[in-house]
Amino acid sequence: MTDFPAPSGPGWVIRLTLPPPSLQDNTGDCDRLCRALHRELSVEQIHIGLALRRQLPGVLREAGYAVRCVVFLEKGCAVLVHVAAADAREWLCGLAVDLGTTRVVLRLVDLENQAVLAEAGFDNPQIEIGPDVLARIHHTDQPGGLARLQRLIVEGLNRNAAGLARSCGIAEKDIHLLTVAGNTAMSHLLAGLPAHWMIREPYIPATNRFGLIAAADLGLSLAPLAQVLIFPNVGSYFGGDLIAGILYTGLHRRQETAILVDVGTNAEVVVGNREWLMACAGAAGPALEGGMSRMGTTAGPGVIDRVRIDPRTRHFDIHTIEELPPRGICGSGVIDLAAQLFAASMIDIRGKLRPDACGPRLFLRDGLAHLIVVPAETAANGRPLCISQADLDSLIRSKAAMYTILETITASVGLTLDSLPAFWVAGTFGQYIDPVSAITIGMIPDLPLSRFATLGNTSLGGATLALVSRDAAKEIDQIRDAVTYLELNVNQEFMNRFSAAKFIPHTDPGRFPSVPRPSGV
Amino acid sequence: MTDFPAPSGPGWVIRLTLPPPSLQDNTGDCDRLCRALHRELSVEQIHIGLALRRQLPGVLREAGYAVRCVVFLEKGCAVLVHVAAADAREWLCGLAVDLGTTRVVLRLVDLENQAVLAEAGFDNPQIEIGPDVLARIHHTDQPGGLARLQRLIVEGLNRNAAGLARSCGIAEKDIHLLTVAGNTAMSHLLAGLPAHWMIREPYIPATNRFGLIAAADLGLSLAPLAQVLIFPNVGSYFGGDLIAGILYTGLHRRQETAILVDVGTNAEVVVGNREWLMACAGAAGPALEGGMSRMGTTAGPGVIDRVRIDPRTRHFDIHTIEELPPRGICGSGVIDLAAQLFAASMIDIRGKLRPDACGPRLFLRDGLAHLIVVPAETAANGRPLCISQADLDSLIRSKAAMYTILETITASVGLTLDSLPAFWVAGTFGQYIDPVSAITIGMIPDLPLSRFATLGNTSLGGATLALVSRDAAKEIDQIRDAVTYLELNVNQEFMNRFSAAKFIPHTDPGRFPSVPRPSGV
Repeated sequence: MTDFPAPSGPGWVIRLTLPPPSLQDNTGDCDRLCRALHRELSVEQIHIGLALRRQLPGVLREAGYAVRCVVFLEKGCAVLVHVAAADAREWLCGLAVDLGTTRVVLRLVDLENQAVLAEAGFDNPQIEIGPDVLARIHHTDQPGGLARLQRLIVEGLNRNAAGLARSCGIAEKDIHLLTVAGNTAMSHLLAGLPAHWMIREPYIPATNRFGLIAAADLGLSLAPLAQVLIFPNVGSYFGGDLIAGILYTGLHRRQETAILVDVGTNAEVVVGNREWLMACAGAAGPALEGGMSRMGTTAGPGVIDRVRIDPRTRHFDIHTIEELPPRGICGSGVIDLAAQLFAASMIDIRGKLRPDACGPRLFLRDGLAHLIVVPAETAANGRPLCISQADLDSLIRSKAAMYTILETITASVGLTLDSLPAFWVAGTFGQYIDPVSAITIGMIPDLPLSRFATLGNTSLGGATLALVSRDAAKEIDQIRDAVTYLELNVNQEFMNRFSAAKFIPHTDPGRFPSVPRPSGV
Repeated sequence: MTDFPAPSGPGWVIRLTLPPPSLQDNTGDCDRLCRALHRELSVEQIHIGLALRRQLPGVLREAGYAVRCVVFLEKGCAVLVHVAAADAREWLCGLAVDLGTTRVVLRLVDLENQAVLAEAGFDNPQIEIGPDVLARIHHTDQPGGLARLQRLIVEGLNRNAAGLARSCGIAEKDIHLLTVAGNTAMSHLLAGLPAHWMIREPYIPATNRFGLIAAADLGLSLAPLAQVLIFPNVGSYFGGDLIAGILYTGLHRRQETAILVDVGTNAEVVVGNREWLMACAGAAGPALEGGMSRMGTTAGPGVIDRVRIDPRTRHFDIHTIEELPPRGICGSGVIDLAAQLFAASMIDIRGKLRPDACGPRLFLRDGLAHLIVVPAETAANGRPLCISQADLDSLIRSKAAMYTILETITASVGLTLDSLPAFWVAGTFGQYIDPVSAITIGMIPDLPLSRFATLGNTSLGGATLALVSRDAAKEIDQIRDAVTYLELNVNQEFMNRFSAAKFIPHTDPGRFPSVPRPSGV
């Protein structure tokens, strides 16, 4: 379970003891509660929905006017979500969701003591429609397509939320708040919002902010009046997952400038401090997320996550997750492999396989050079694990895109990459990456290793923070509004930088002083 | 159709032309609209519900970004209710409702030009459960009782709103806003809120404010996203109908102090000006609403609304509505009758029938004196219309209650009744009442007639104002919060005053200098 910053300040459960009504104080039941909540929450307005107003007179009297209230905030307006008797044996829980295109992670939280109770993940069931954002958005153009996608993710959430709750002896109806950090497309598909225009110039999402949504309106089977906060986005390519990441890291509250990099199919980058936040996103290609070749896959048992090649003997030392027979290679393994191939002079600075150095590991298939990484006899499924020249070209493009994005965004704010005091890598991929290898291939800047930190699932961390801390939740809109989005697609300079970054480590090796020049190159 | 003050300032339909999206301005569709609305509305927050967010991208593009928005306000938060293309042939209507215990009146309004399109009334269908508030609230204690009452009024509203709309060539789905001014009990029953505690000490309503409610959540068949504003109340006995009345009269904005009296089964009184508002309510008894005796009824064709008795000949000159054969007598007719009986010395200052003066019109039934008002031969149904001593006693109690309420509330703010610069009478009853007769029996103070004004249906007027004027709607909560409610039930002085007011016109005739002392008394 990933740690997250201890929440500062109060959470969403408020204990109140109201003065009982009298002839001298004949304020209505709902207004009596509102009055007390107003003393706790400095908000313009407290919204109490009709269903709750219908219950309140009974609940307040049964509870003897001593209650626990679950509230939630939407900008200047607090929403009363649930009222329970102060002494009732009743869980008051929330669920934080990292809504990934590929993987969804849930974290169940006790809203009263702000403790994490359990965590679970599942594959996004929308994968059956399409593996990526683009395929799914295209599917929304078909009749019933959007509804089908929406139903798939909601059913997945219902099933897994119920399972997670049950594992802790908790019922779905005890989950009153849901915070969802996802990219803009996944957020739209969950809300059932049209995504058609998101992938067409000028790339307009239906909404940047979602407002609080009744869970029931989404088809979610949680508490009947549960509320859902979907993190807002800055645009089609800078989503709520990134806003959640910023919230989690506290980037927006620090004096020192830091850069936060989230690498998936897209590379999303924010650089900033408490004064300003500059963000951009760009296609990093599929190379870094697995799926890049027949052998590429996401991290899991039997997947290669570490490669060492002896530069003299060119002997491959392969490590797999859980040390099972190798069945594929994940993003971090690919970066390791490329760095090691380069150090062993088996690829040149353009990333091209060198026949003389690769020797018998090299073969041609369909006119394309392939390198055997794991021979058939030691591979899990009895077939050799190979990497093709096309795979390597793809990796070079991805790493060049990443480096160029980093260079462009720092340049846009008048900084250079080597001046960055802190370099944070978020995402599952970030957790496994070896910064030395990433530097070697010129994917990330050649900073002292002490400046790097991998932060794990920052989206889930941010979603959790919003669930346990009122103060944190208030910052979400501030963060969203503070982010300046740098549009890369319209930047010509980007293309020049990209060309220079398509070499290992770069056309300007002076930028990578720590990377040794391989022998024999 | 009742006139109402010309709305000041803008209404709820806002015309906007948005800059279309571009790479340079890639704000989301909903946020683009929000941004433009924020320039029009000075509110903290604009709420756009999920259903509307789902429609907006399509609607905006079809409309070429030129739209008409229907908005509504709930305290500091504006709610976007509907968006139509600027040039679409589509009505944008609202419905103002005076939700009476006995009668419901609807007024259809064009939200764009703030014109009244049509008006209609119907009997409150909850009458089949019980004629009065008390009977209906008792019914809510039965299983399904509240739901049944709620359904009855909602079905009535649906049926009559549809009929009214159709009569103007408009569809129900063109009605986007509903404003409802009703007493606290009727408002609770419409919202389906528990009313049980409202009639039990310390008389606590479920809610003082209702918030905006989705029409669909009440079962109302209007536009799918129509919103309902139920006027807030000050307590169980001072409802939204009175708040609407204050709004309509502008009492809360005038420098000069005025008193506003709404007479029904309850007498509700507000006295005040732009500095303060003092209110109270008390049971006036059924005598003033019809239903007081076998002959008592609500105003309608054939109902006696004027009586003149020659003090010398004691000849009765009867006038009925539409001059049809008399079939009953309404509140204003009863007051006229009592005043004339007193002037003709046929009742004494206690309201007792004087056998010597009544002559052959008097008879005994079941030991109770009865006076024939209309003999059988001229009555509509061939049976004499009579008034009994019990009816007269009931009227005396009612008029005494009314006068005592007026005296008590003015005394509570250090004023005397004869110092009031303006005396307004609201309600259907107020429209027909002859102030001279009401003064004669000592029901209202003996002010110069120029200070009296009858305002008609002020509740409907206030509901209409909230529907056509943003500024007016903003005042509703200010009015509610400004009203100080004077609890009469706990006031001992009230009982002393009441005893003194149970004479015609009063134990202190010096208070009624304009009332001649009848001859022969």
